[in-house]
Amino acid sequence: MDSIRFEKNILVLLDQRLLPIEEIYLEYSDWRMVANAIKEMVVRGAPAIGAVAAFGIALAADELKDADTASFFSGLAMAAAGLKAARPTAVNLAWAVERMLKVAKNQIGCSPSQIAEILLTEAKQIAQEDREVNKKIGDFGAELIPDNAKVLTHCNAGALATVGYGTALGVVRSAVAAGKKVIVYADETRPYLQGSRLTAWELSRENIPVTIIADNMAGYLMKQKKIDLVIVGADRIAANGDVANKIGTYSLAVLAAAHQLPFYVAAPFSTFDLTLKTGEEIPIEERCETELTHFYGKRIAPEGIGCYNPSFDVTPANYLTAIITEAGIIYQPTTEKLQSFFKEAGHDRR
Amino acid sequence: MDSIRFEKNILVLLDQRLLPIEEIYLEYSDWRMVANAIKEMVVRGAPAIGAVAAFGIALAADELKDADTASFFSGLAMAAAGLKAARPTAVNLAWAVERMLKVAKNQIGCSPSQIAEILLTEAKQIAQEDREVNKKIGDFGAELIPDNAKVLTHCNAGALATVGYGTALGVVRSAVAAGKKVIVYADETRPYLQGSRLTAWELSRENIPVTIIADNMAGYLMKQKKIDLVIVGADRIAANGDVANKIGTYSLAVLAAAHQLPFYVAAPFSTFDLTLKTGEEIPIEERCETELTHFYGKRIAPEGIGCYNPSFDVTPANYLTAIITEAGIIYQPTTEKLQSFFKEAGHDRR
Repeated sequence: MDSIRFEKNILVLLDQRLLPIEEIYLEYSDWRMVANAIKEMVVRGAPAIGAVAAFGIALAADELKDADTASFFSGLAMAAAGLKAARPTAVNLAWAVERMLKVAKNQIGCSPSQIAEILLTEAKQIAQEDREVNKKIGDFGAELIPDNAKVLTHCNAGALATVGYGTALGVVRSAVAAGKKVIVYADETRPYLQGSRLTAWELSRENIPVTIIADNMAGYLMKQKKIDLVIVGADRIAANGDVANKIGTYSLAVLAAAHQLPFYVAAPFSTFDLTLKTGEEIPIEERCETELTHFYGKRIAPEGIGCYNPSFDVTPANYLTAIITEAGIIYQPTTEKLQSFFKEAGHDRR
Repeated sequence: MDSIRFEKNILVLLDQRLLPIEEIYLEYSDWRMVANAIKEMVVRGAPAIGAVAAFGIALAADELKDADTASFFSGLAMAAAGLKAARPTAVNLAWAVERMLKVAKNQIGCSPSQIAEILLTEAKQIAQEDREVNKKIGDFGAELIPDNAKVLTHCNAGALATVGYGTALGVVRSAVAAGKKVIVYADETRPYLQGSRLTAWELSRENIPVTIIADNMAGYLMKQKKIDLVIVGADRIAANGDVANKIGTYSLAVLAAAHQLPFYVAAPFSTFDLTLKTGEEIPIEERCETELTHFYGKRIAPEGIGCYNPSFDVTPANYLTAIITEAGIIYQPTTEKLQSFFKEAGHDRR
């Protein structure tokens, strides 16, 4: 399954809003429509929207390739702002857009047309790196998964949330590839049902056993010893290791701690935002009330009531057993540990 | 709103499956259909299904009133078994049926026809008592609700879950009646959405401010200090104070403890089952997978996956700040405290 493809100057996205019932691919050749696809959640998942935004910049550059250099760069800046504004919490989006802009600015003496070509190559590179990075995360993380593990996950941090393979589900894939038996419990993940719609779909396609539960069942399963560990992805990780991820992650972390279960976060470097001291500074997106009051267009709640729909929450670093990255595992993350980890990895994440 | 009425030998039930979109009343004159209505959740909520089952016994007695005494009692026993089997967890169902059978057996020398009349009176008495009991629970509990309290509740322990007024929501009603300002956060309560469909509906009808959230948001709201206390109903309480209630209650109790928030259970004597030493012995109903895989008939999860759908969980007594009953409040319940409480209340609940 290739949920994100770029073919003949067209970005092709699997419409994740319709899964698992329909597998429809939508085509994009205009960055504005790409920004809208991110906003409307045709594609979601921090690494995936990063890669898609990079292709958005490449499409903008292609549209501007016959303009003069000044217009080219001001047009590119507008596309960058539009794409970054599509969703506020996942930092991979801003990371990918900034990386693309930096590449563009570095091409001194090149024509807009030449830069546009270089940007398309860079976007493809970002997508390719994402696959490789996930594979590395998976292989490091697989060591943490015992044979016959019963793994609880939340939302979808799988192939669909990335360019391929997945972060949290990449760890599951690598464990299975290493010959381990793994049973996955997937929180359905209200209101958008990424668990029952997407995680269940992509795991069942690979014959990895998956059982869906309602989000509110997680604690009871832990109490019944039906869960050995929890693993999730991330949308943004602050300098101290605090993790913004899909709403409900924080509750799971507290429940895991109360049941002495390991709680792992799997995320690439591009999800870290070391400019933020703690998770308190991470902007949390609130989405439309209708995600809770309606279901596929059908009203389920009465009119005239309040509705609160934050799309993410922040889990303090002290709840994490470890963060699994492409350069290894950071146990019980702190500001100091993250600093020295990134220094050793030779990676420049401000 | 009278969600349970008995008029001219017909039991009238508000169909809670259709709320809040449609207000449809269904009529029952056959105990078998009443048992089915309980099973299919036309009516739900521990005290409500107790009262409805009592009317079911009254309907069975009416059907048998021209039979000889032996046939009358064997027919009644069959109805009792059928009604009790409709749902396994809420003990109020068995409690009401047993109370009705005891009344029938006590009418030495009466004809089946006379007993049938007495049983109808008894069913009406059970319904009337339920209203009065809830009012008392509400008034005791109101003392625990501070002015301007932000109260989190789960499922629907309201007028719709009882004959009227409600247990957990009865406490909210009494606090509001006492002049306090109360804001209610209602977990939507997957998979059946009793929170967003029923709790939101009955509170908004009385202009009590209610905001719905997805179940997985509760922990994050507690962390944000948007919640002052949690109050829920119960389906069965064991002799040591362990509480079976709607799935998700246990997670909330653990989350409340982690955030140092009071966690209250509001329940009448009829919800206590002192024959069970601990909550481990309470039978937990598992319901149909389609509650998770489908939504109003539309498939939302892929085929060929696992699905786990326990309808209730058990919260150990040590998580409870207090149980609120019609005879007063039991703080930090233990077997000893419950024993002496029931002794003082002069109430015979084995």
